[in-house]
Amino acid sequence: MHMTSVQRARVAVAGASGYAGGEFLRIAANHPHLEVGTVTAHSNAGATLGSLHPHLRSLADRVLAPTSVEALAGHDVVVLALPHGASGEIAAQLPDDVLVLDLGADHRLVSAAAWEQFYGTPHAGTWPYGLPELLHVHDGAVTGRQRDALRGATRIAVPGCNVTAVTLGLQPGVAAGLIEPRDVVAVLANGYSGAGKALKAHLLASEALGAAAPYAVGGTHRHIPEIQQNLLTAGADAVTLSFTPTLVPMARGILATATARLVPGADPAAVRDAWAQAYADEPFVHLLPEGQWPSTAMTLGANTALVQVAVDAAAGRVVTVTAIDNLVKGTAGGAVQSLNLALGLPETAGLTTEGVAP
Amino acid sequence: MHMTSVQRARVAVAGASGYAGGEFLRIAANHPHLEVGTVTAHSNAGATLGSLHPHLRSLADRVLAPTSVEALAGHDVVVLALPHGASGEIAAQLPDDVLVLDLGADHRLVSAAAWEQFYGTPHAGTWPYGLPELLHVHDGAVTGRQRDALRGATRIAVPGCNVTAVTLGLQPGVAAGLIEPRDVVAVLANGYSGAGKALKAHLLASEALGAAAPYAVGGTHRHIPEIQQNLLTAGADAVTLSFTPTLVPMARGILATATARLVPGADPAAVRDAWAQAYADEPFVHLLPEGQWPSTAMTLGANTALVQVAVDAAAGRVVTVTAIDNLVKGTAGGAVQSLNLALGLPETAGLTTEGVAP
Amino acid sequence: MHMTSVQRARVAVAGASGYAGGEFLRIAANHPHLEVGTVTAHSNAGATLGSLHPHLRSLADRVLAPTSVEALAGHDVVVLALPHGASGEIAAQLPDDVLVLDLGADHRLVSAAAWEQFYGTPHAGTWPYGLPELLHVHDGAVTGRQRDALRGATRIAVPGCNVTAVTLGLQPGVAAGLIEPRDVVAVLANGYSGAGKALKAHLLASEALGAAAPYAVGGTHRHIPEIQQNLLTAGADAVTLSFTPTLVPMARGILATATARLVPGADPAAVRDAWAQAYADEPFVHLLPEGQWPSTAMTLGANTALVQVAVDAAAGRVVTVTAIDNLVKGTAGGAVQSLNLALGLPETAGLTTEGVAP
Amino acid sequence: MHMTSVQRARVAVAGASGYAGGEFLRIAANHPHLEVGTVTAHSNAGATLGSLHPHLRSLADRVLAPTSVEALAGHDVVVLALPHGASGEIAAQLPDDVLVLDLGADHRLVSAAAWEQFYGTPHAGTWPYGLPELLHVHDGAVTGRQRDALRGATRIAVPGCNVTAVTLGLQPGVAAGLIEPRDVVAVLANGYSGAGKALKAHLLASEALGAAAPYAVGGTHRHIPEIQQNLLTAGADAVTLSFTPTLVPMARGILATATARLVPGADPAAVRDAWAQAYADEPFVHLLPEGQWPSTAMTLGANTALVQVAVDAAAGRVVTVTAIDNLVKGTAGGAVQSLNLALGLPETAGLTTEGVAP
Repeated sequence: MHMTSVQRARVAVAGASGYAGGEFLRIAANHPHLEVGTVTAHSNAGATLGSLHPHLRSLADRVLAPTSVEALAGHDVVVLALPHGASGEIAAQLPDDVLVLDLGADHRLVSAAAWEQFYGTPHAGTWPYGLPELLHVHDGAVTGRQRDALRGATRIAVPGCNVTAVTLGLQPGVAAGLIEPRDVVAVLANGYSGAGKALKAHLLASEALGAAAPYAVGGTHRHIPEIQQNLLTAGADAVTLSFTPTLVPMARGILATATARLVPGADPAAVRDAWAQAYADEPFVHLLPEGQWPSTAMTLGANTALVQVAVDAAAGRVVTVTAIDNLVKGTAGGAVQSLNLALGLPETAGLTTEGVAP
Repeated sequence: MHMTSVQRARVAVAGASGYAGGEFLRIAANHPHLEVGTVTAHSNAGATLGSLHPHLRSLADRVLAPTSVEALAGHDVVVLALPHGASGEIAAQLPDDVLVLDLGADHRLVSAAAWEQFYGTPHAGTWPYGLPELLHVHDGAVTGRQRDALRGATRIAVPGCNVTAVTLGLQPGVAAGLIEPRDVVAVLANGYSGAGKALKAHLLASEALGAAAPYAVGGTHRHIPEIQQNLLTAGADAVTLSFTPTLVPMARGILATATARLVPGADPAAVRDAWAQAYADEPFVHLLPEGQWPSTAMTLGANTALVQVAVDAAAGRVVTVTAIDNLVKGTAGGAVQSLNLALGLPETAGLTTEGVAP
Repeated sequence: MHMTSVQRARVAVAGASGYAGGEFLRIAANHPHLEVGTVTAHSNAGATLGSLHPHLRSLADRVLAPTSVEALAGHDVVVLALPHGASGEIAAQLPDDVLVLDLGADHRLVSAAAWEQFYGTPHAGTWPYGLPELLHVHDGAVTGRQRDALRGATRIAVPGCNVTAVTLGLQPGVAAGLIEPRDVVAVLANGYSGAGKALKAHLLASEALGAAAPYAVGGTHRHIPEIQQNLLTAGADAVTLSFTPTLVPMARGILATATARLVPGADPAAVRDAWAQAYADEPFVHLLPEGQWPSTAMTLGANTALVQVAVDAAAGRVVTVTAIDNLVKGTAGGAVQSLNLALGLPETAGLTTEGVAP
Repeated sequence: MHMTSVQRARVAVAGASGYAGGEFLRIAANHPHLEVGTVTAHSNAGATLGSLHPHLRSLADRVLAPTSVEALAGHDVVVLALPHGASGEIAAQLPDDVLVLDLGADHRLVSAAAWEQFYGTPHAGTWPYGLPELLHVHDGAVTGRQRDALRGATRIAVPGCNVTAVTLGLQPGVAAGLIEPRDVVAVLANGYSGAGKALKAHLLASEALGAAAPYAVGGTHRHIPEIQQNLLTAGADAVTLSFTPTLVPMARGILATATARLVPGADPAAVRDAWAQAYADEPFVHLLPEGQWPSTAMTLGANTALVQVAVDAAAGRVVTVTAIDNLVKGTAGGAVQSLNLALGLPETAGLTTEGVAP
């Protein structure tokens, strides 16, 4: 489907009761070329969107249908916001010419072995990866960006939120051969919405307020193989990654501090240029002026990634810091950006770069 | 000025370094009929918007000019986001056919005596009041709403944020003669952005986190006469108000709990209907379904007011709760709504009802 | 039991896995005259305290026993931190000479009718009420304080947290005949720990951060009859109360704004004196200097109530604001204060007035 | 001075208006062997403690004297909570037999060159370092801990808060020769009180709420040479450190994620044992059970450090996470612990291990 500027594509959202599905609906409700069709849920089927997402005023009266292939039929676009492992079966039954975006992890990884190691279920296959800014590097030269693979696509695997932040922070240095991808260390400050709406004691407000606490420490987080895959695409020959996310008391946002050693002999003065060039023409990824550091609050509700980079000569490391809204650029906004490319719309349609701050 | 659907009005913002000015720019940058022109500041003149408001990505390179009548000249719209008392002099020198919106208090009050009692400076005069939903009641009958006075206006006094919340909560009952305006009690939970960007110790994050604390207790808050004025417009014969705002640890949002006694002999069953009718056709003020209560988070970044009302028979009081984003519906979004009316644009142009939640 | 200064009383805690039970243990672990004995739980029986309350370092290895009369036997003190309605049956089986403190509501109300109206279960009976500062007024004169009834008591009903805050704010004016108890309005900002550890969606951090939202609006909150009962004790002839709690993004704390009309003819100048006299000798209730307002953060972890009062002459109302830590002065600290009285210890033993701030 | 169990030492606090000085007073006010004497300030001289630190109830009426050697004279203990660079001159004029604790950085570093590189002022000299748990390693064997150097000391340099967290996290592995100190990466989540009470725009609550943002990125933070110094003491032959602190929306707390490569050939199975042995007998540093991760909230107000360690075999790194309250174990509590050692008191006197949670 290639849209003209006056058409609206009808979009169905499966898993609309969760945070990712709700955020997609928030953006879709204000998108000039999208029209929200069926919305579905599992245990919340029968409820109104207004009762589950009181912030979605224009859709408050919509009633959630039970998730099924039938309910999702007859739309131009289907968005799957389902638990990991649940989208493969439904996706397989949707027509080939419908644009399907999977906000879950099922179709992101190329390596079935990595999938099975980290997710423990059979691999559902690999779809075009929805990170338009991802650099493709072959033999040390940038040969393109991932957006080329998304134009006209009918299946898109939307990246993980942490993955987006870490990849955008590091890839310019990897692509330019300036940083060593074999000993990357990434520590992230994460807002609670990234953990979803599950009723778990450690997600209660009483526990969260005043607390910073890590989770999935020691190489167990499922986003690790996805980051490795991206940095390989960006030119790394191998990627070793220590990855530690930490929950901090905010609803949204990821601040990813990712550091890698400067390649021996590399010119530190070339670092800033590499990042500047990588993102000079990107509408949603902004290298901040020198001395200004990203804050997650600046990206709230926006499809913006703010990036900064510094060389620590004494430590021999390049330090990058990237801020995104995990639900926008990290999930639903990134999905709409890819959707726009797939449908032939302007890449920025329906998306804003202005964060809601303070 | 009456705009066609394809024109863009050029807007200058005086006091663009503060939170109110920044928020107007955030909305203006995404408004289909506005084009941001000159931005000015006082002590921050010479700085870029990007250094002061890193979230305003599309305007990051704009340089702030010193605030002056000359700098503001040549625009279709001028927005004054200046400290109270500072806008009168500048406004007096702007051409009559330019639309001027004052986000400060200077031109809100009809009563010069009330102005002088609460603000202590000479009264700058009264402009059309920018609360489109304000009910006009004469002899017990609704004769119109404030939006009628805003169409084609060239001067608009934008309401105070607390005032908007309390007025929207109470006015249906006042207009319907169901609640007694002579002993109103309002207590508000306020986000910190309402206190502005001034460098004061009690506004530091270390002091705010984990803290709820009142301010301006005991009848001293400057929004009191403005609320009284509005409820008089909505049909009260006299208004007595106990008003206590409290700062709570959130950046944005007002939750206003406002209660008044049910008029003796009034039918409690009529209460819900009165509120429902008052807001049935309002695009931005929503009475929630029975049993659902407003949360400020649901209005973040949106021009939405969420209202709920209950009758406490044992206490003989009607309790209303209203949630808004103080910087949007409470300030800059309300301003744009009025601007839209003044310029003949759709009232909802450039505004969203969908809050950024969670 | 009347203790000497070198003894330690052995205390058992039933319901130790919740926030109230955990807080009692935090204080008990540092109390010079208490020794923690058996700790029990329902669904968490078998778990260690360290897994449920990692902050209780000195008790981390204790294993929770299933709650039963047998498990609680053989202690000098038993603390019941059970869901409302669950303590009556257990309490009835404990020996008369054991000091039993009920942190739940079961034994607070004198009126069985009020209990049944608000709680819907049979009344378990009334115990001495554990608010030592509660004024007793007969025929317009203060005849004593509740602490007199607690010395040597063997059963104590610990007050509700909101009740403590509102009662302490208003009782000096009621006792002095300065404020009219027939149209009290109280609005509270509440930290999330007051809502307990239940796994409910609206208690998730993602929902709470950035949100202020009311609950139990319109006369339904169970603390209403308890406040009324206290103000009657303090000299009111009848109490009418509009009561609205609101959750705000903090883990602990209650800020209670409670207002009542100045009695016609009463001298506004007498107001401050009444509050000053009421609390001049209280170790834990402090009237702040004029112009300084309470903040919940100042009471964190302390058994302190900070009170301020102002007269709003234009509104004809006295406004009081009271800050407490809901888990300390509002629950477990208040319980220890009463326990000290019951056991003949210094009233302040094991308690601090210094809040953990900032 | 060596105290008997019934004596109280009189302590003066210079710089009592800031957060560090206030926190020392909070602990001192509840310490069985301390008596608060003179409190001083610079710009706040003449104010009461109650106006600056309303949480310090028992000291509310104390008036701050101007900071001077004369004002500090006549005390057994003097605590300097002054800006970096300000304590050297005052300390030099205090009698040798008075115990002086410097909460600032001036006397921490052994290397004058490192001091001058990071602080830019002349070096004031080196005092015994107040981290009792610091391991002393020579030729691969633990020869003692820093507490041995603090018994009877009359001058103590209290460590930096970030330094305490990172040192406690890493030193067991360094001392045991299990981790490689030449490529340490530490990323910290920091509460705002660590940034002090300075009136800076980025410390305002409006900016902080919802925001995670780094500062002092790229090798510029002044705590770097101090961490290096400590790890050298703990047995490292050289230390290379990438260090990035990030502000997150909490008033207190440091969560330090510090990672280092496993030494080639080292046995991963030995890692847990090394940490367990290092802290088995420490009253304030607790290695959590396997699978349980530290949260800053668990240490609030307590002198506790919670530590966890994991081996990430795929990344070849050991990951440690340490949580402390920056104002307690990170500053004032650590100071009291050292003071206890210096005065011959029980090391734990006046300190608690129980955090105020939730």
